[in-house]
Amino acid sequence: MGEFELIRQYFQPLADKARQGQLILGPGDDCAIQRVPAGRDLVFSVDTLVEGVHFPPNYSPEYLGWRSLAVAVSDLAAMGADPVCFTLALSLPSAEPEWLAGYSRGLAQASDAFGIALAGGDTTRGPLTITLQVHGTVPQGLALQRSGARAGDLVCVTGPLGDAGAALDYLGCAMPTDEQQAVLYRYHYPEPRLQLGSALIGKASAAIDISDGLLADLQHILDASGVGAELDADKIPLSDALVALKGDEALSLALSAGDDYQLCLTIADDKLAGLDSSVRHQLTVIGHIQTKLGLRVANAETLGFRQGFDHFGRSD
Amino acid sequence: MGEFELIRQYFQPLADKARQGQLILGPGDDCAIQRVPAGRDLVFSVDTLVEGVHFPPNYSPEYLGWRSLAVAVSDLAAMGADPVCFTLALSLPSAEPEWLAGYSRGLAQASDAFGIALAGGDTTRGPLTITLQVHGTVPQGLALQRSGARAGDLVCVTGPLGDAGAALDYLGCAMPTDEQQAVLYRYHYPEPRLQLGSALIGKASAAIDISDGLLADLQHILDASGVGAELDADKIPLSDALVALKGDEALSLALSAGDDYQLCLTIADDKLAGLDSSVRHQLTVIGHIQTKLGLRVANAETLGFRQGFDHFGRSD
Repeated sequence: MGEFELIRQYFQPLADKARQGQLILGPGDDCAIQRVPAGRDLVFSVDTLVEGVHFPPNYSPEYLGWRSLAVAVSDLAAMGADPVCFTLALSLPSAEPEWLAGYSRGLAQASDAFGIALAGGDTTRGPLTITLQVHGTVPQGLALQRSGARAGDLVCVTGPLGDAGAALDYLGCAMPTDEQQAVLYRYHYPEPRLQLGSALIGKASAAIDISDGLLADLQHILDASGVGAELDADKIPLSDALVALKGDEALSLALSAGDDYQLCLTIADDKLAGLDSSVRHQLTVIGHIQTKLGLRVANAETLGFRQGFDHFGRSD
Repeated sequence: MGEFELIRQYFQPLADKARQGQLILGPGDDCAIQRVPAGRDLVFSVDTLVEGVHFPPNYSPEYLGWRSLAVAVSDLAAMGADPVCFTLALSLPSAEPEWLAGYSRGLAQASDAFGIALAGGDTTRGPLTITLQVHGTVPQGLALQRSGARAGDLVCVTGPLGDAGAALDYLGCAMPTDEQQAVLYRYHYPEPRLQLGSALIGKASAAIDISDGLLADLQHILDASGVGAELDADKIPLSDALVALKGDEALSLALSAGDDYQLCLTIADDKLAGLDSSVRHQLTVIGHIQTKLGLRVANAETLGFRQGFDHFGRSD
């Protein structure tokens, strides 16, 4: 237990900030206590990251601290929620001070940036595994969900896609180029689209965060909503760095690589037009929802697919 | 992903029951949604169980299903909370149908027994590790905490202690005796003291669930409350089975072995007298809170300690 008491000391600064706002009681009792304001719903999500599966072996603990919380908070952004607090269940093979200092530093940076406080946790000995549960709140009954897309809605994304996927090729580079650094930064420091998600409450008809790739995640919206979609590959936003690094392969990464943590959302055109311009300018329309099931991508010849490519090979 | 889709099917029956009461949205979206009733606080706790650390290797998956949820829900009982929902983050080396069927069956039994619905989860490949987060609610501002014990309060427990600790000796028995079966049942099927915890809201001054052993867990109350205590070893409730199996060793197990998941609580004597008799009769007074710091146990000579034994060797 001495070793794990030591571990907890690294997270003490995060816990010390805990008792604030909705978090009535932070770490140290049998439970933490959150007071959800009247008129708001609690939304929450749990994510597990396993070394060698969700991040590379020997990945920088400081990047991992940021990344692990950002990835979890991105689910709050997809619901349009404001972050409140999180729990951390950490399995560690041993208490290495250097790793713990780096991880807790990255986690604290993310905690500050997203305005989310550590509410509690559990530490056990085992292979490196990180489970984070994040809590947020939304106005009652208004959380963005996957199931609200309707035929005629526009499909939008909140920023360039594919950078984080491309970064996987450069994680081991000792001296990355400027372009490589640009995409690596997207991988190491994903920024959940919290303000955008919140601004889309009552406007967007459906939303999801892009963790597994645009096509796979949009398909979740289509499945939940019982609709189809057609995208225009020419409209998918690609960063200059990605195009410079990957050329013709850039589009494929943007469609299928995950880890970018932009939002994909659907919205009626009049709702889009009515958005505050500061919000609207952060959205790129990439397609539209159709009654016909399936997901089609026009202008995707560079992928080697014929036009009308259907992601899941459905003929209906 | 096919394998993990398969895994999720085993938990589908739990998820199907999910959308009820406070749980507005269950598994399947980026987040689940809980609507906490006006006038109540959300309480929540996360617990990780690792094979070989928190349960024996090759432990019955059905027992584990019950046990893993019971252990987590016990933290809600300690706060006096009513269970609402839980998340399950499961790391598995592979998808073995027999294991998954057993685990999900035990989990469903516990879920029904405690009235707590599956709200969401995550499944990853890795060494067998189970992280459960449980949610409950309590009347606003009235959650039982560790910090409220005051000099003069009585120390109580909610049932016999030491059985689960004794059971560890018999886990491998092919033909356990009746007494061995009795203590094994306590280990396999702990019952969180939910109704008692709830009945003690506004009555008990502090509470904790006994997961690490009476002395260790009571010490958490003493530390949080800035007080000491003296227990009377003769008053510690011991089951007939435990005494028959362990003789003089029974008291030591009752004081120091964990896994029983009874509650330890402190309460002023007039509050105890004012409890409904059905509640009062389930409590055993085992000592009292003192201003003097430290934890003393009278009548513990059979332990080989001198009278006035101090658990943490403090002289203050």
